[in-house]
Amino acid sequence: MSLHDIGEFGLIEQLRRSVRQGPGVKIGIGDDCAALEVPAGELLLVTNDLLLENVHFRRDWIDLADLGAKSVAVNLSDIAAMGGVPRYLVLGLGLPSSLTLGEIDRFLEGFLGEATANEVSLVGGDTCRAEQFLSVSVTAHGTIPASELVRRKGGRPGDLLYVSGELGGSGLALCQLEAGQKPEPSLACRHFRPRARLSLGRALASRGLVTSMIDLSDGLLADLHHLLAGDSLGAVLYLDKMPVSEAFDRVTARRPEWRNLVFNGGEDYELLFTVPEQQRLEVEKLSEEFDVRITEVGKVKKGGKPVDVLDAAGNPVSVAAAGFRHF
Amino acid sequence: MSLHDIGEFGLIEQLRRSVRQGPGVKIGIGDDCAALEVPAGELLLVTNDLLLENVHFRRDWIDLADLGAKSVAVNLSDIAAMGGVPRYLVLGLGLPSSLTLGEIDRFLEGFLGEATANEVSLVGGDTCRAEQFLSVSVTAHGTIPASELVRRKGGRPGDLLYVSGELGGSGLALCQLEAGQKPEPSLACRHFRPRARLSLGRALASRGLVTSMIDLSDGLLADLHHLLAGDSLGAVLYLDKMPVSEAFDRVTARRPEWRNLVFNGGEDYELLFTVPEQQRLEVEKLSEEFDVRITEVGKVKKGGKPVDVLDAAGNPVSVAAAGFRHF
Repeated sequence: MSLHDIGEFGLIEQLRRSVRQGPGVKIGIGDDCAALEVPAGELLLVTNDLLLENVHFRRDWIDLADLGAKSVAVNLSDIAAMGGVPRYLVLGLGLPSSLTLGEIDRFLEGFLGEATANEVSLVGGDTCRAEQFLSVSVTAHGTIPASELVRRKGGRPGDLLYVSGELGGSGLALCQLEAGQKPEPSLACRHFRPRARLSLGRALASRGLVTSMIDLSDGLLADLHHLLAGDSLGAVLYLDKMPVSEAFDRVTARRPEWRNLVFNGGEDYELLFTVPEQQRLEVEKLSEEFDVRITEVGKVKKGGKPVDVLDAAGNPVSVAAAGFRHF
Repeated sequence: MSLHDIGEFGLIEQLRRSVRQGPGVKIGIGDDCAALEVPAGELLLVTNDLLLENVHFRRDWIDLADLGAKSVAVNLSDIAAMGGVPRYLVLGLGLPSSLTLGEIDRFLEGFLGEATANEVSLVGGDTCRAEQFLSVSVTAHGTIPASELVRRKGGRPGDLLYVSGELGGSGLALCQLEAGQKPEPSLACRHFRPRARLSLGRALASRGLVTSMIDLSDGLLADLHHLLAGDSLGAVLYLDKMPVSEAFDRVTARRPEWRNLVFNGGEDYELLFTVPEQQRLEVEKLSEEFDVRITEVGKVKKGGKPVDVLDAAGNPVSVAAAGFRHF
């Protein structure tokens, strides 16, 4: 049984039957549009990420269930960064004929599993044949009370800079794959199965603890630049405070040139946020509540040279600011 | 100046500056998510269409400004079919390096022109490098008072079947291109620059004139099947009533085998809807109000053989029910 046998409408019908119509979904898969409820007084959050074969992933490296789950998580991460509650997903799939029905099922299994784990509903989309490469387009929708919205803009000089979780693990797994090595399971997991920091983002926003926030998809330095740019701010970062995993330490002890992935490795999908000094304690208490590292990694300052990385003695050190470059 | 020179963020920054932030847009391009207003008491409509190179279009046949406009129109057509008001667009673009900045500008010119003409705002998206083929993913958002929503389900035996505009022109232009012929301008226009029937769809829904509706993207027979399937209904169609253009008549007089495109040519983006007999006059009056042909092409009947096409004498004739097949 191939995709050609069941056809586009067979695939959509299969999806329609296997997807539970979640809360707020008036019309889900199978009409011209989905029809959805947005709570009165709340804003709709919308974000879109493309995942294209041989650009964002290689089919020989990633399990299709992981790809499905990741395509959900990277979009939900953007909703986390605004402080929102994720609600609805739309999936556009360009399917090359080399993909078997079993592979498509695995993709959807990962996609729907990650959706269910985060209480979001697949409500519609588009499927079609693709020329040669698998392409995945996900649009995620969330909601948030207008007064709780957190933006990239809003940080102030003197605010503390925090990141959730650990940095560089996803980029390190990718470097190992590119070098022909098998990444350690914990690093591979960071790369292939990222999780959006939704509960933490929601708490930071709803409790009014942060002045600005962004999720880390392009690398700490690149995303910090986006966070500061709107307000023409600068920052210092503390080299010796960067949170990394034990596996990251172990692998980069042998390959010190990969240490910089803390700053310019992509796809961490952690949150980077600015905190007024008087909120420090309340923010750090969230670490226990949500079982996640929360680390003060720097401080916002007035403009000038955008970012200084300081060593333990307070002296500036040089770090290449590559970030993920799409073109 | 190439895409590589300005980079993803350069392109996004250029878009951010050139896009006017429309009504209801609290946050547009340039943050982790767009933040949008949905009127209280209204439902959010969401639809997504992928347009992939060499599947949905050929770059040597379509002008990129037309492709940009068409990628908007085909999505808005789905909102028209629910009776909604279009509001917000999200654009995912996978850009092969063979595309010049000038070509990207032309695409965006067509995209934003069509958006502006329909009073919808581009609010966000994703751009990235693509391996070889241009891929376009558009997610369109509309709103509608919950009580006015029109679905594919809802038609009843005895309802009249209507279509807007003229059929088969887009499919005919494609056949001519595939046969190495230059399509007549009016047919080419139907294929490359379709327009969504938004005002008509809105009027039909808000005035309560229709029991079900769908837009014609896969061909009359295939989409009629979708319209009837949910209610297990059948239909008759009147062969001699099919609305076609003068150019369609002229070209198919020479190539009678293309005449069937009225039934199975794709991408007409007209509306197909069911009307209770007592609303007949009010529906037909809309033709003048919106300056569009509105033609009674058949009638809904109880289930059984799904669709009979009848000739002028009322005898069934056989029509191949191909429709556009994606896989």
